[in-house]
Amino acid sequence: MPEIEKLLDRKIGRAIFQYGMIQEGDRILAAVSGGKDSLSLLYHLLKKQRSFPIKFDLMAIHIKTEFRGGLDQMETLLKSWDAPYEFIEINMTGRLKPGRKMNCYWCSTQRRTELLQYAKENGYNKIALGHHMDDILETFIMNMAYKSELSTMLPVLQYDNYPHTVIRPLALVKEEEILKFADKMGIRSIVCDCGFDVKSKRKNVRKFLDDLADGEEFIKDNMYKAMSNPVSRYLPGVEARQQE
Amino acid sequence: MPEIEKLLDRKIGRAIFQYGMIQEGDRILAAVSGGKDSLSLLYHLLKKQRSFPIKFDLMAIHIKTEFRGGLDQMETLLKSWDAPYEFIEINMTGRLKPGRKMNCYWCSTQRRTELLQYAKENGYNKIALGHHMDDILETFIMNMAYKSELSTMLPVLQYDNYPHTVIRPLALVKEEEILKFADKMGIRSIVCDCGFDVKSKRKNVRKFLDDLADGEEFIKDNMYKAMSNPVSRYLPGVEARQQE
Repeated sequence: MPEIEKLLDRKIGRAIFQYGMIQEGDRILAAVSGGKDSLSLLYHLLKKQRSFPIKFDLMAIHIKTEFRGGLDQMETLLKSWDAPYEFIEINMTGRLKPGRKMNCYWCSTQRRTELLQYAKENGYNKIALGHHMDDILETFIMNMAYKSELSTMLPVLQYDNYPHTVIRPLALVKEEEILKFADKMGIRSIVCDCGFDVKSKRKNVRKFLDDLADGEEFIKDNMYKAMSNPVSRYLPGVEARQQE
Repeated sequence: MPEIEKLLDRKIGRAIFQYGMIQEGDRILAAVSGGKDSLSLLYHLLKKQRSFPIKFDLMAIHIKTEFRGGLDQMETLLKSWDAPYEFIEINMTGRLKPGRKMNCYWCSTQRRTELLQYAKENGYNKIALGHHMDDILETFIMNMAYKSELSTMLPVLQYDNYPHTVIRPLALVKEEEILKFADKMGIRSIVCDCGFDVKSKRKNVRKFLDDLADGEEFIKDNMYKAMSNPVSRYLPGVEARQQE
């Protein structure tokens, strides 16, 4: 087994264990967008399913929109992995209210709703998403900048309004590691060609994190750990507020 | 009064009020490095001293090392403002233990100790430092990256080991605003020419913050507010740890 596969194996195992992501009898939907992240995740979840002492169900699901082509390639991959999968087709543009413009946030909310609906109708209790450490750090910075909050995407999120749990088993894996793995395995991303992507700020944040971590493997790990280590005594106004 | 002076006036006033920085009878040392930040702060504290309904003492102090020249220029400025001031001369290189290399962190610790010592001997209870919002945000990111902590420099810091309080009245002022003000007032920075400055990571962080905020005045304000708004429910592992 290549070193990079072992590394992902270990980090995904650690996240599952540390955050208590999977329990006996879980029925898990792995959302695959066609990108390298979610496909790499699916590959490893399939492996864990075979090797874990506890039993869980796993199915891959892809929400098919008019914005992504090249699905044959993904189907070939899924078949070669013996992955149970389903494609759900939706017409994204048709769902848009008149006069509203398409954007990534809205589109991803639509897809998330579709996933939750499918999970509900088919008795799945967990949804595995392919967000990795870089996504989580990036969201932390974006939430600071646009929501005035110290908050981010959680490795495990229990919805308030749905009896479902979202898990992110790649939480401890860096994007760079996934790229290496995907490259080794010949996993190619199907990119979204909607043309509405204007996530330049996000890209800016990603580039900054890469620059900051440049050559120092531990930096992103430190930043990730920091998110579970708010020191209220050294955050302006927090202590004062807590005493109110 | 120029607009930019009014802006600093307002923001410094707000910080002093919001964080309860100054009380009747305080004896405050304003540390001036010779840079635009601390000189701009001194200018405004002198003004506040004249206009505030409460009385406080204020003296400027400069720790003079072998690394900064151009002090005449600063003295001229201090005199033109009628500022009481004192220069304390120390031989920084001479304090270095044999075999140790000079660095900014060590040098600033030495100067801080000297300030505290002077305050103690001369009955000052507060030390005003010229750190601004960008410094505080930068330190937040650096602490994430190198200390795995969500923490930063505080607007008001009560030392554990000294009966002194550090205040940072520029906490709500952006560097860009200080640059504009200093420019308007003809305040020129005396730069440190020690040659040991290797704060490239810090500069990297500063540049990123500027890029992120580019043209969007509210971004840094949002990030600053975020630091007093940790949402434990949306920070990985925090809730779990708090319940332990």
